[in-house]
Amino acid sequence: MGLKNTGGIKVLFTEAEYKERVRKTKVRMREQGIEVMMSTHPANMNYLTGYDGWSFYVHQCVLVSLDQEEPVWIGRNMDANAAKVTTYLSPDNIRNYADEYVHSPVGKHPIDYVVDVIKEKGWDDKRFGLEMDQFYFTHKTYQILNEKLPSASFADANLLVAMVRQIKSLAEIDMMKKAGKIAEKVMQTGIDELEVGRRECDVAAAISQAQISGTKDIGGDYPAIVPLMPAGKGIDAPHLTWSERRYEKNEPVILELSGCYNRYHAPMARTVYLGEPPQKMVDITKFVVEGLEETLDFIKPGVSCEEVEEKWRNSIAKGELVDASRLGYSFGLNYPPDWGEQTASMRPGDKTVLKENMTFHLIPIIWQEDIGFEMSSAIRITEDGCEEFYNFPRELFNK
Amino acid sequence: MGLKNTGGIKVLFTEAEYKERVRKTKVRMREQGIEVMMSTHPANMNYLTGYDGWSFYVHQCVLVSLDQEEPVWIGRNMDANAAKVTTYLSPDNIRNYADEYVHSPVGKHPIDYVVDVIKEKGWDDKRFGLEMDQFYFTHKTYQILNEKLPSASFADANLLVAMVRQIKSLAEIDMMKKAGKIAEKVMQTGIDELEVGRRECDVAAAISQAQISGTKDIGGDYPAIVPLMPAGKGIDAPHLTWSERRYEKNEPVILELSGCYNRYHAPMARTVYLGEPPQKMVDITKFVVEGLEETLDFIKPGVSCEEVEEKWRNSIAKGELVDASRLGYSFGLNYPPDWGEQTASMRPGDKTVLKENMTFHLIPIIWQEDIGFEMSSAIRITEDGCEEFYNFPRELFNK
Repeated sequence: MGLKNTGGIKVLFTEAEYKERVRKTKVRMREQGIEVMMSTHPANMNYLTGYDGWSFYVHQCVLVSLDQEEPVWIGRNMDANAAKVTTYLSPDNIRNYADEYVHSPVGKHPIDYVVDVIKEKGWDDKRFGLEMDQFYFTHKTYQILNEKLPSASFADANLLVAMVRQIKSLAEIDMMKKAGKIAEKVMQTGIDELEVGRRECDVAAAISQAQISGTKDIGGDYPAIVPLMPAGKGIDAPHLTWSERRYEKNEPVILELSGCYNRYHAPMARTVYLGEPPQKMVDITKFVVEGLEETLDFIKPGVSCEEVEEKWRNSIAKGELVDASRLGYSFGLNYPPDWGEQTASMRPGDKTVLKENMTFHLIPIIWQEDIGFEMSSAIRITEDGCEEFYNFPRELFNK
Repeated sequence: MGLKNTGGIKVLFTEAEYKERVRKTKVRMREQGIEVMMSTHPANMNYLTGYDGWSFYVHQCVLVSLDQEEPVWIGRNMDANAAKVTTYLSPDNIRNYADEYVHSPVGKHPIDYVVDVIKEKGWDDKRFGLEMDQFYFTHKTYQILNEKLPSASFADANLLVAMVRQIKSLAEIDMMKKAGKIAEKVMQTGIDELEVGRRECDVAAAISQAQISGTKDIGGDYPAIVPLMPAGKGIDAPHLTWSERRYEKNEPVILELSGCYNRYHAPMARTVYLGEPPQKMVDITKFVVEGLEETLDFIKPGVSCEEVEEKWRNSIAKGELVDASRLGYSFGLNYPPDWGEQTASMRPGDKTVLKENMTFHLIPIIWQEDIGFEMSSAIRITEDGCEEFYNFPRELFNK
């Protein structure tokens, strides 16, 4: 992939691709009457500029203005160095605040500096789009903008950039396929390492090693969610992380793991039984696999998210199974705490119509009394159907 | 440690300890005129109730009210199961919202459910404390509370619970010492694995494996920050994460890594040179080690954060070194994206007076032209000085 000569050493996509993303963002901004979009979500900052770094524990943002071609990156001084090597931006669009602004309860606030840049650019009377329900946009950020930019107005543009991200480019799909290759290795590692008597943390450690190392040809990145591996009595608590407990005989273990390549994900869930599985689990597996395969056959451009969920629900009803949560969600490029995109969910009421190169993680979760079961599929919508990002047996594993 | 008979299988501290934390929180609430504290920060939720789980990608909170002894945990339905096993709370203080509230752009919002609980409890005319500049408290959350609780009032209590967390109990110090044992193993792994020609991701993978596995006796947890290991030309970009690049001869590598035990951290930074280090790096090491040791000797209860920083700055001035960022910060229990507590920083202007069982990460960062250097120390303030959470050589490593 072409890198900008004068730019970063780690810029992943062509300058043309970034410019196309910014163009699509500006189209949505015009439609929504927004003149300056302020993105604080790390995935949106990455998407619009290439910026990558574990710096999202301090305030930072990207501004996209209709009256300027390139976005402006604003962050902490020491992170401007990362912006220089990871973004395609000209140096004058990389702006930074001094360290005295960082976590200073009584002193300067990073958003004060953002306000300074906005004023300098002459954008202080514009209509701003803000990501009002994203975790990296605090109420305090809003308060400062609202107080210090009295001539500006503010609109909720919570998912504006995320909606652009929803349809992937071919270069992004390529990243996700590589993440899928890593996911295959990661899941196999998880299954191989699970063993009665081993500590949960040792299995989690081996999985993390596989995620970050990746394959010989595809180096791994940290997934936006740590290995999730509910087991035994905790099987109904899917987001409980591992402990020092040792695996016991005759317990089910769910592995929800992702491969990650350059911040693009390919999540996968499988279930393992440590021992001879009870007939009920074998039956659940059969119905879920059939239901998932019927649903995957049904998926194609033009059908809606709620139709996909209905297909799934009707399909597993034959097995008298009930799945209480949403069937799936849009995913892709992301940072902790989530690899989901929040834009579309396969559940009743979501009328999002599937389009080519949307990407979804279908993850049915079945709980029946003491049994928990997950088996998932991460897919791309193709011209006339869908394809998985990985190739891994759809079965109940037992050890 | 005593577990509640009727309570969780993973509750870490005694019920008495949690009650003491809540009591201290209520003292601060009374001082600040706050009747109900709403904590959305995952570390505060854990601190007040024991709750642990990777569920902070959806809205959740803990409410502490002056008129009720126990806090109330509110989260997603499937995460209530984790709340049952990790908190000391009575079942009626674990409340949950259905999956249809999750990431639903046009439907219900989780904070609508929080409002329902507040009304049911009769707290809708109270004065609330909110964590207005914490990443897990969005502007949208504020908007909903403000709109749907017209008789309530809202105060910024951004660091109220974090200030209670700042002074650790002996049981917490014990957790951090265990994290320190893991940190020793983790740093040794990083140094051992670094090698010219290896991919950065393979070294990061080995480090992550060591972090999560921990030691034979102390199982590891995921640190709130991934391994940071800026190297070579990227040495001045401390939050740039690893890539598939292979290490080259004659480059410096900074390792900033933490051990983590039950969400408690012990961060450590060391610098490695791949080859024979230039004299300048040897000199920097000497001055930083001397400066750090002089500063550690100076630290004791009663001195202020800014005095510590001044001591450090004067000390390294002999080596004509300049450190542009803050020298250190309070740390402890935390979740991604940060292990810092935001409450106190060792830098000019911070008048926080050190007290016994405060815990700080002192992490000087030196950049000079093409050279980067870090060496850190994670300490507890003792009765008459300070002690480190780990025992690891303070030197420049070369391989």
